[in-house]
Amino acid sequence: MTDIKAIKAAAKRGQGIVRRTPMLTSPFLDDIAGRPVFVKAECLQHTGSFKFRGGWSALSALPEETRAKGVLAFSSGNHAQGVARAAQMHGVPAVIIMPADAPALKIANTRAMGAEVVLYDRAGGEAREEVGERLKAERGLTLIKPFDEPLVIAGQGTCGLEIAEQAADLKLKEATVLTCCGGGGLTAGSALALEAQAPGLTVRPVEPEGFDDMARSLASGGIVANNGPEVGLADAILTKAPGQITFPIVSRLCGPGLVVTDEEMKAAMREAAVRLKLVLEPGGAAALAAALYHADEITDGPVIATLSGGNVDPDLYAQILTER
Amino acid sequence: MTDIKAIKAAAKRGQGIVRRTPMLTSPFLDDIAGRPVFVKAECLQHTGSFKFRGGWSALSALPEETRAKGVLAFSSGNHAQGVARAAQMHGVPAVIIMPADAPALKIANTRAMGAEVVLYDRAGGEAREEVGERLKAERGLTLIKPFDEPLVIAGQGTCGLEIAEQAADLKLKEATVLTCCGGGGLTAGSALALEAQAPGLTVRPVEPEGFDDMARSLASGGIVANNGPEVGLADAILTKAPGQITFPIVSRLCGPGLVVTDEEMKAAMREAAVRLKLVLEPGGAAALAAALYHADEITDGPVIATLSGGNVDPDLYAQILTER
Repeated sequence: MTDIKAIKAAAKRGQGIVRRTPMLTSPFLDDIAGRPVFVKAECLQHTGSFKFRGGWSALSALPEETRAKGVLAFSSGNHAQGVARAAQMHGVPAVIIMPADAPALKIANTRAMGAEVVLYDRAGGEAREEVGERLKAERGLTLIKPFDEPLVIAGQGTCGLEIAEQAADLKLKEATVLTCCGGGGLTAGSALALEAQAPGLTVRPVEPEGFDDMARSLASGGIVANNGPEVGLADAILTKAPGQITFPIVSRLCGPGLVVTDEEMKAAMREAAVRLKLVLEPGGAAALAAALYHADEITDGPVIATLSGGNVDPDLYAQILTER
Repeated sequence: MTDIKAIKAAAKRGQGIVRRTPMLTSPFLDDIAGRPVFVKAECLQHTGSFKFRGGWSALSALPEETRAKGVLAFSSGNHAQGVARAAQMHGVPAVIIMPADAPALKIANTRAMGAEVVLYDRAGGEAREEVGERLKAERGLTLIKPFDEPLVIAGQGTCGLEIAEQAADLKLKEATVLTCCGGGGLTAGSALALEAQAPGLTVRPVEPEGFDDMARSLASGGIVANNGPEVGLADAILTKAPGQITFPIVSRLCGPGLVVTDEEMKAAMREAAVRLKLVLEPGGAAALAAALYHADEITDGPVIATLSGGNVDPDLYAQILTER
């Protein structure tokens, strides 16, 4: 069961380890959005994305003898690094199954964090689940799912807990909280935390055009999947469909989904670099893109945008910085 | 008089306004340096550099009727923005005299923060002091010097105060603190704060090759100036000579200066982007460059590097990111 109690327990397990990331502002961003914009800089989290929160939460909750056998994850990159680093810090093995076309930086980092990386061919339809099942059985590994897992949702929810505290410090009683949304772990976890700790803050998920399964699921009242391509610019948040656990939470607590274009995410990445001095990856800039370029679709008042990750290959990043 | 009392008073005047910037780490940086590396992310300060601390400190200490007439600053960019923003937040006018060849981003930002920018031709030897004197006399402006001014040094010292607190939280009793050094305001202020609050932390200034006036002054025991060109990659920290007020403080409290090359600063900028998700300007990466690439010149033990600023033009930044 994922609830505020589970989120507070995850926060306790992460105390002194998970970073409390800063909430930042820039008058230049306020000008673009026409309202106060606050950003929650999760790109400054360990491993460069909020995913470390969920990885740490899940690993730290396992019984010691289970954890000692090692963990397994499927991920295109940020969950991979979050789990790999949490395993490294616990001194236990991690096997990460990644698509061969994941960003080179994410694959290299996952390996550098001591994980055994198994690549599969996404286009070729190789049965990654079978590989995972075999490894689990052979080695007794525990699977850490990327979002549809209560302990992971609780970990991501600690980001929402911090937002509630930081909003209170800033005397923000009502605001829209925009989350970059893939499978809905950060969105669901944050929404649960805010429901309990800052009920005037409403979460709205943000997705890239063509990968707006959460927005369409929310609109239709039931889980619908994407039918288009599996790959795109915002690799971190291109999931097929909302989770079985995350969707009911998001559906109950969140406002309608917002959809941003690749160009808007790139523009938001440039603003983050120039105005905030933060490196964002495309998927990590989705919420900021909505805050800056979809103001007319957002209720009046302050906006808090989660900047969910910064793991972008330097060459792609440099190219995006010079596109104007 | 600049002392710990003045620094604490500056911290009090800045409470709730000046950002407490995070101290961050990355296992990848530790690997390069062969020791624990902590970074003080001052690029996340308002206006993208620590200079806002000094600007706010000076403006907030002026008598109200003096401040209301406005302030004047000479700066190639970061002090300009720090003073301009502090003036904007106080609702008073600012005139900033900048070299015409300062980075475009810094000039544009200073204007956008409501300041009146007066450009002068650095190469042509135009008498910027005369322009400044005339404006001061005509309008009753108060000059805010970039570093050789007790209130500014006290403001920069608040960065050292935070380092002392953060080091205590991390149980760091002995460490080398590396500061990016221009005229010595940050270096002197931080050294004074640490002398009082964390005497096991020793500050060492870091400068770019060819602009190592502080290192040579420290080595020779008296102020010596640079004889070479006035412009270079690390525009933020290319001062002619240490200040009359800063030098005696740095000389009394700091270890020998370190000197880094342009290539080392660029490499440190790349590491900051990839490992920390932080955008640094060349001058803001000098201390990190020393931590990473001059380990053999630094006493064993942990290093804390100040990342002093991130105001780099996007095109130059993109170019540096792809040089490898």
